[in-house]
Amino acid sequence: MKIIAIDSSGLTASVAVIEDDNLIAEYNVQYKKTHSQTLLPMLDEIKGMIDLDLATVDAIAIAKGPGSFTGLRIGSATAKGLAGALDIPIVEISTLEGLACNLYGTDALVVPMMDARRSQVYTAVYEFIQQDDKYILSSVMEDSAMAVEDLLVKVNELGASLKKKIIFLGDGVPVYEDKIRELTDAVYTFAPAHMNRQRAAAFGYLAIDKVNSGDVVSAFDHAPEYLRLSQAERERNEGIKNKGSNY
Amino acid sequence: MKIIAIDSSGLTASVAVIEDDNLIAEYNVQYKKTHSQTLLPMLDEIKGMIDLDLATVDAIAIAKGPGSFTGLRIGSATAKGLAGALDIPIVEISTLEGLACNLYGTDALVVPMMDARRSQVYTAVYEFIQQDDKYILSSVMEDSAMAVEDLLVKVNELGASLKKKIIFLGDGVPVYEDKIRELTDAVYTFAPAHMNRQRAAAFGYLAIDKVNSGDVVSAFDHAPEYLRLSQAERERNEGIKNKGSNY
Repeated sequence: MKIIAIDSSGLTASVAVIEDDNLIAEYNVQYKKTHSQTLLPMLDEIKGMIDLDLATVDAIAIAKGPGSFTGLRIGSATAKGLAGALDIPIVEISTLEGLACNLYGTDALVVPMMDARRSQVYTAVYEFIQQDDKYILSSVMEDSAMAVEDLLVKVNELGASLKKKIIFLGDGVPVYEDKIRELTDAVYTFAPAHMNRQRAAAFGYLAIDKVNSGDVVSAFDHAPEYLRLSQAERERNEGIKNKGSNY
Repeated sequence: MKIIAIDSSGLTASVAVIEDDNLIAEYNVQYKKTHSQTLLPMLDEIKGMIDLDLATVDAIAIAKGPGSFTGLRIGSATAKGLAGALDIPIVEISTLEGLACNLYGTDALVVPMMDARRSQVYTAVYEFIQQDDKYILSSVMEDSAMAVEDLLVKVNELGASLKKKIIFLGDGVPVYEDKIRELTDAVYTFAPAHMNRQRAAAFGYLAIDKVNSGDVVSAFDHAPEYLRLSQAERERNEGIKNKGSNY
């Protein structure tokens, strides 16, 4: 099975081509250019490098969110265009699950955190459970938008009750590193440079099981999952509330 | 600190640029083209994508071996050329250590294995030890070229004595998967697609500590470490032995 995986939900733009147990190509960029400038050229670059025949691709894996609203829209539009043109399904994968999958094989609790601005993070807690000859990524706390202080209370509780160490990763870590160091009671580490941001390759890996179990959507049905209202929607709602029935 | 990392020791060609805790760019290709066709164009591609000013690079990290003789020579020549031209040091990192570092944060013993032909693998055993807020990669069995059966005897001993699970990875796994399944008594898994081959990003991560501790060489002094004699050298030596003193 051959999968093109795409992630532009955060600071990193990432594309990968996975075929069964093999990562054929992967290109990750974390740079100030916008994803609309980088994502398609990156895909085109690896397509040329590996002589990829798009007709042989079985599905498009996409980081469905949470994440940057604009980034998610660029990734989703790219995935919808590709899947629609190739008449293949889309596999939607939580950005946080894909991020956590960078730590495959750890016994620690994995806590991905992405900066959601306004003192909040998009976050979740995962653990790996061994089943036969592989590890399955299992949700301990579902994807949430929450204050970093509230997350750290939860992480301390989970670390103590499950007797597990913690590994933090994601672009929220440098933003909230001081708070993490101040408020985390559990034994913790930070993921290193080669594992601390989204990699499309991890989303491609997770997609294979989902395709096998039929957990896919059509290009038409796919939409990002923002977890929160956009700033424009929030401001509109606050305007409605403030102006009462006269609005 | 900014590092360009290069690996062409096995089936994958890989280049990465790491700056401190950030992976700025990474490009991995596992495809039938030879590394001489891919490595420099890949580096040139990411250089353009991230507007990399080569004068800002502090060191070149290279997978020093073991691995494919031709692949190692292409990687080393590229590293020597870059480091010589830029007048910066080279950081030599064992291919097997870099490979093991893909599993950062696991409690299992990590067993990288690369196909060395002639029923042998290049292999080693590593574990991660937590020190403060990071994990340190620590050698349990040094880099070796050995028969896969001998490796699995050793792995069974280590798994039992250290009471640890095993994670196998590297391009030797698909080649010797049947033997691993047959002969491994310890609880084991295989690393998944997004983690089972060399990534220059991991070598870049490992290089930062080595630069900080002065564990570097000059472009002039760098040479690959093959662990075994090349086929040509072997055949010459066998010729000498067979022909005795008449040779």
